[in-house]
Amino acid sequence: MNRLDHIGIAVFSIKDARRFYENVLGLAFLHQETVEEQKVKVAFFQAGSVKLELIEPSTADSPIRLFLEKKGQGLHHIAFLCNSLSEQLKALSDQQVQLIDRYPRQGANGKKIAFISPRETNGVLVELCEPKGDQHNEHE
Amino acid sequence: MNRLDHIGIAVFSIKDARRFYENVLGLAFLHQETVEEQKVKVAFFQAGSVKLELIEPSTADSPIRLFLEKKGQGLHHIAFLCNSLSEQLKALSDQQVQLIDRYPRQGANGKKIAFISPRETNGVLVELCEPKGDQHNEHE
Repeated sequence: MNRLDHIGIAVFSIKDARRFYENVLGLAFLHQETVEEQKVKVAFFQAGSVKLELIEPSTADSPIRLFLEKKGQGLHHIAFLCNSLSEQLKALSDQQVQLIDRYPRQGANGKKIAFISPRETNGVLVELCEPKGDQHNEHE
Repeated sequence: MNRLDHIGIAVFSIKDARRFYENVLGLAFLHQETVEEQKVKVAFFQAGSVKLELIEPSTADSPIRLFLEKKGQGLHHIAFLCNSLSEQLKALSDQQVQLIDRYPRQGANGKKIAFISPRETNGVLVELCEPKGDQHNEHE
């Protein structure tokens, strides 16, 4: 779990927000998709060996919409790569680490994901993600 | 400016916060220092090719103390590597990009740093940093 995969940024509109990351910072656009299970539209940009993920709510009851209403746009989470996410969650649970997800959920790009409670991390929402079998050695 | 260098996380106490990043995520501790100019104590941890920076206020009037009072602990900024920071700031200014710092300031680890206004970035505090001459190809 010691390799950063991506940084999630909550925005009202990917279309409006991407200009800064693409045109000012010069990050390359990777891909965009809607993740139905999480009620979000996401767009990924390459930033060296990690990625930035712009996250826009895709429904009125999207958790990201609630985040935006409460905290406004900005940094939302950081995600670390891990192998065998199910086993990792079990090990964390055995260590009494509080989890938001005790079992993996479906994330963007075919990844399995789970979140650790921000109570464990001094306020940072930390995601763990396990790439699809064919993505372990790829950036995207 | 398209390579991420580090993620800054505001905390009340590095001593309390580091346990999660070191013991649970397994990140390697790199170094700790006080940056007088910014009134902070910082500790760096390696997370793959990028670093996490825990930031604790070192004085009662530290800007990080104000951030903690207003927003609580959590993600504070993301920092991108760049060469020739002075020239880069001039170019951004010429493009009408709003800057917090028009000229480089002294950051941790001997880096020159400057911040872009969050108004440009949909709420994300973005730092640009130029490593010391001997650090360009090192992780730390």
